[in-house]
Amino acid sequence: MQKVILSEKFKLFKERWTPKIVGELNGQHVKIAKLQGEFVWHKHDEEDELFLVIKGQLTIAFRDYEEVLNPGEFIIVPRGIEHKPYAEKEVEVMLFEPKSTLNTGNAGGDLTQNDLEKI
Amino acid sequence: MQKVILSEKFKLFKERWTPKIVGELNGQHVKIAKLQGEFVWHKHDEEDELFLVIKGQLTIAFRDYEEVLNPGEFIIVPRGIEHKPYAEKEVEVMLFEPKSTLNTGNAGGDLTQNDLEKI
Repeated sequence: MQKVILSEKFKLFKERWTPKIVGELNGQHVKIAKLQGEFVWHKHDEEDELFLVIKGQLTIAFRDYEEVLNPGEFIIVPRGIEHKPYAEKEVEVMLFEPKSTLNTGNAGGDLTQNDLEKI
Repeated sequence: MQKVILSEKFKLFKERWTPKIVGELNGQHVKIAKLQGEFVWHKHDEEDELFLVIKGQLTIAFRDYEEVLNPGEFIIVPRGIEHKPYAEKEVEVMLFEPKSTLNTGNAGGDLTQNDLEKI
């Protein structure tokens, strides 16, 4: 039961689109990630996914609109909904989602991260 | 799928020790609360609980030590572990925990909130 200082955790890595596990509870993972540029369109068939912006600005595109998130703002993407995160400048985000969640969901491809690092 | 602006949500209520539901995913609730003063010692037999400080300073007392959390810092209190949150000045926190979680856990008493408001 040690507290997690998010700003310290973000200093531990530079790579983007590579979520790191910073906590686990009730079958869920707490992850952090640095994002910049465009991700792939994807969905998670079995998992709802929460994005909380810590620093910077993140856009989540859906097929029919977009949401722009600033620090202190979050969105829950329900299972089955196609989405594509993107950020012009680097953004730091916190994610909350089931341990089973794969970052690219149904899309697969080069950006897929199978074994996430715990930091 | 609308974003949640935490600062706007915190403006909607003043009462303390009264968590409000601001999101739901994967059987979990995202809650926010304003805390000041001392809560009761309690534990949750079946639920792990995450406290993320948004504004102010929160202390979580355990039976053998304390953790002091500032904004951008979180702690996960595992099921079964007795804890007591307290804050000298008002603190704004975000909670992640299963929908089944009762705020006072096994302790009961006057501070128990059975039907949480969604805001």
